Amino acid sequence: MFTVREIAASLGAEAEGDLDLTISRAAEPQDAGPDDLAMAMAPKYAENLSDGSARVALVWEGADWQSMGLKAAIFAPRPRLAMGGVTRLLDPGQGFDDFGIGVHPSAVVHPEAELAADVIVGPMSVVARGAKIASGSVIGPQCYIGADVVIGEGAQLREGVTIGARATIGARFRAQPGARVGGDGFSYVTPEVSGVETARKTMGDQGDSKAQSWLRIHSLGAVEIGDDVELGMNSTVDNGTIRNTVIGDGSKLDNLVHVGHNTRVGRDCLLCGQTGISGSVEIGNNVVLGGQTGVADNLFIGDGVIAGGGTKILSNVPAGRVVMGYPAVKMETHTEMYKAQRRLGRLMRDIDALKKAVFK
Amino acid sequence: MFTVREIAASLGAEAEGDLDLTISRAAEPQDAGPDDLAMAMAPKYAENLSDGSARVALVWEGADWQSMGLKAAIFAPRPRLAMGGVTRLLDPGQGFDDFGIGVHPSAVVHPEAELAADVIVGPMSVVARGAKIASGSVIGPQCYIGADVVIGEGAQLREGVTIGARATIGARFRAQPGARVGGDGFSYVTPEVSGVETARKTMGDQGDSKAQSWLRIHSLGAVEIGDDVELGMNSTVDNGTIRNTVIGDGSKLDNLVHVGHNTRVGRDCLLCGQTGISGSVEIGNNVVLGGQTGVADNLFIGDGVIAGGGTKILSNVPAGRVVMGYPAVKMETHTEMYKAQRRLGRLMRDIDALKKAVFK
Amino acid sequence: MFTVREIAASLGAEAEGDLDLTISRAAEPQDAGPDDLAMAMAPKYAENLSDGSARVALVWEGADWQSMGLKAAIFAPRPRLAMGGVTRLLDPGQGFDDFGIGVHPSAVVHPEAELAADVIVGPMSVVARGAKIASGSVIGPQCYIGADVVIGEGAQLREGVTIGARATIGARFRAQPGARVGGDGFSYVTPEVSGVETARKTMGDQGDSKAQSWLRIHSLGAVEIGDDVELGMNSTVDNGTIRNTVIGDGSKLDNLVHVGHNTRVGRDCLLCGQTGISGSVEIGNNVVLGGQTGVADNLFIGDGVIAGGGTKILSNVPAGRVVMGYPAVKMETHTEMYKAQRRLGRLMRDIDALKKAVFK
Repeated sequence: MFTVREIAASLGAEAEGDLDLTISRAAEPQDAGPDDLAMAMAPKYAENLSDGSARVALVWEGADWQSMGLKAAIFAPRPRLAMGGVTRLLDPGQGFDDFGIGVHPSAVVHPEAELAADVIVGPMSVVARGAKIASGSVIGPQCYIGADVVIGEGAQLREGVTIGARATIGARFRAQPGARVGGDGFSYVTPEVSGVETARKTMGDQGDSKAQSWLRIHSLGAVEIGDDVELGMNSTVDNGTIRNTVIGDGSKLDNLVHVGHNTRVGRDCLLCGQTGISGSVEIGNNVVLGGQTGVADNLFIGDGVIAGGGTKILSNVPAGRVVMGYPAVKMETHTEMYKAQRRLGRLMRDIDALKKAVFK
Repeated sequence: MFTVREIAASLGAEAEGDLDLTISRAAEPQDAGPDDLAMAMAPKYAENLSDGSARVALVWEGADWQSMGLKAAIFAPRPRLAMGGVTRLLDPGQGFDDFGIGVHPSAVVHPEAELAADVIVGPMSVVARGAKIASGSVIGPQCYIGADVVIGEGAQLREGVTIGARATIGARFRAQPGARVGGDGFSYVTPEVSGVETARKTMGDQGDSKAQSWLRIHSLGAVEIGDDVELGMNSTVDNGTIRNTVIGDGSKLDNLVHVGHNTRVGRDCLLCGQTGISGSVEIGNNVVLGGQTGVADNLFIGDGVIAGGGTKILSNVPAGRVVMGYPAVKMETHTEMYKAQRRLGRLMRDIDALKKAVFK
Repeated sequence: MFTVREIAASLGAEAEGDLDLTISRAAEPQDAGPDDLAMAMAPKYAENLSDGSARVALVWEGADWQSMGLKAAIFAPRPRLAMGGVTRLLDPGQGFDDFGIGVHPSAVVHPEAELAADVIVGPMSVVARGAKIASGSVIGPQCYIGADVVIGEGAQLREGVTIGARATIGARFRAQPGARVGGDGFSYVTPEVSGVETARKTMGDQGDSKAQSWLRIHSLGAVEIGDDVELGMNSTVDNGTIRNTVIGDGSKLDNLVHVGHNTRVGRDCLLCGQTGISGSVEIGNNVVLGGQTGVADNLFIGDGVIAGGGTKILSNVPAGRVVMGYPAVKMETHTEMYKAQRRLGRLMRDIDALKKAVFK
């Protein structure tokens, strides 16, 4: 329960009307009850206020809130930014402390693990030898923290997260259910030159290389994760082969994202749902890869690159470029190519007509 | 063990021959032993009967079963439909009740959770405060049922399924191993306008927006799942931001499918393997999305839409349309474009010839 | 700790210099300390030796190691092969035996399961009735081994792996965290002919089929996995419908790979990250599918096929072919088509000029 005044103060936002009204949750305008904060940050949403019974709303700058039948309003010059503040304030959380604080009796914590006094470890979780978990961290139920893992302060691990041996993780780490850190990299070699190696060199011809079995290259490296990193549900980050795989400060990985061995992701990147990064890729800072983007191995993606959804990046991308397509090209090239493709039918008819006229 | 008569009755199908023969399992014709029901619903499968020793087979309408050396036959006018009935009848299940009925001694169930008397909770599972699980439900081993989750009757959760706080789930829910419900949505905002926002507006130009860190927008909404929904292995369904993410009655999600925050999937949809739906998408009823389909955010997919495998949907799709490609276009347009592309080489030679003839 | 002599012997490689120096780990040249084996298998890596303090390196055949300031060198004629040997030797593992050998007290093992005397079962793991686990196997923490599962000798299951009932698995199985075996296949049928069936027949027209609900076809088959198979993090392998889904000897599946029901993968295949194989696909031996490859259902992929990253295979592929694209075509066709597409703009201008010249 917060007053309108408290919410506005927390957002650093202006508010008008009865600032002592109290709010218990946020709601869409049509669903909002009298104790809800209606999210009406644009006129098209505000239209639905009359279908609900909100008394207070988050509105756009300059909105005529009184004509909407409200008793109070908070002004949001940048609506999504205000959403960030409001949702942080009103987040009810998962209630993992309902199982008690400290280490749950059912959890197995190795005697040589070091947990700060206030760390919560949920039911059925396992913490291995030499793991260190810093203050303020909550390890949810059924998590696994491997040998010699280091986790910084204020971590929040949801149910079923697993961290392989020797990973090091910064402060304020968030991992959604089933996120996986520190599996072995997918790295194999054949005794003699394989068809794949030949095909890569010749761009398509695998020669007469014989069938062989694969020998594994073990992963001796681990995973190194910066501060303020978030991993989505069932996402996977592989160990490096010799050096570590790295996820930089502030980067966020969505559900089912895959980051291969040795890859280095820079600061403040967003890797959207089901994006896959192969091994030994270098990704700069502030890179945004849309859903289902793929990046081939050993590539370089510069700072600030943006890839549209479904893009398959098969060659290096210089800093600042916006790309799309399979294979990835500049967004405007993609748009041109696509338009041309859609005109291909007409083009072929034109050529037939020309051929008739010229050659006949 | 069922008699041929019992199986036919259960399918509502005609049968001929010795209806008292008993069947213990189903088998492909070549693998079928004398106690197996051979699946010979088309002549090409029936040919293999002679390699096995089946006495009874499921055959097509009008099949001359006696000439196949069978002692009895069940007729299936719609073979896959009969497969549904036969496999339901003969499914041996996972044997979770081998660990005993009721709540396994190793499970942790919060005293304020409400479980119907006949609910099975497997070893190492955790049920949080306020969760309600209705009659006939089986919670497999190593599952997590979050705070205030509601699960309808007859649910079957396989090993390692997790359901985040406040999800509501209808009757006859089935979740395969590692299915994840209720992670936070992938929703972030920068303090000032980001390059991504600019690039989306300009279709490719991100202007000179500066590098910024991402602030999270928390998910206050939950997940709302209808009756008869099934979730595949390691699939993921995100919480909504303010409203709930919704999966309608009868919809089925395959392995590794991702459904983003706020998205609403209608009734009786099939989302095939590794399909990814971004946030705030509206999907109608009876929609079928082939494997690895991707849907960009904030789109509308009408009732009865069908997408071929690998389709990337980047704009709204009206009801009833069959689409394919990246970006998605009508199936027939896709086929035309593809044919034209394959003729591009010849086209270019034609044009060269024309240029020579006309301009020289 | 190994001497240079021991490492060289283990690799079957030549070594020179002080063969009694001891090595504790491998490192990249710039990071290598005096007790590390520097990985300097090509001149471009050897250049970085001066930034570290390595005394011993793995170098290319004929390398002038003394001029690099080294005290000893091991020669690797095929560098990645040597990597395989070195990393196997120096792999520190996950330390699951830190929790003790045998069955951890917190694990639940059904009295009718059969475990070889030396099998390790980690904390919170569950082994169901009738499961058989052979000698030398390590079942990590929080794993589930279903009813009547058979696992061959020397298996290594990382944390959170689950194996559904009746799967049979050969020797030296490796499964990364969260790998899932034996979920139900994604198989449904409508009472009457569905729009999808019609659209597949007509290549795009679903006719006037009515909206229907889906009936499930249960999976009576299981999963059959050969020797030396490895499964990546959060990968999924479905049960077969009547027969088993099969993964052949020596095949490796990367993270988030999906293999559908009834599919048979041959020997020594590599399925790279996020690849998805639909149901009832036949994949030959020594097939390599790049990351995010998709294969439609009921197809045949011949021996030795190689698919580039992002390929969507929508028709059969004969043995030995190298393919790429959506839909998949021969690699050289793909390259040609792509080049032609990039020239489409110029082509259209040419045609406009021709039309002006000829028709005006």
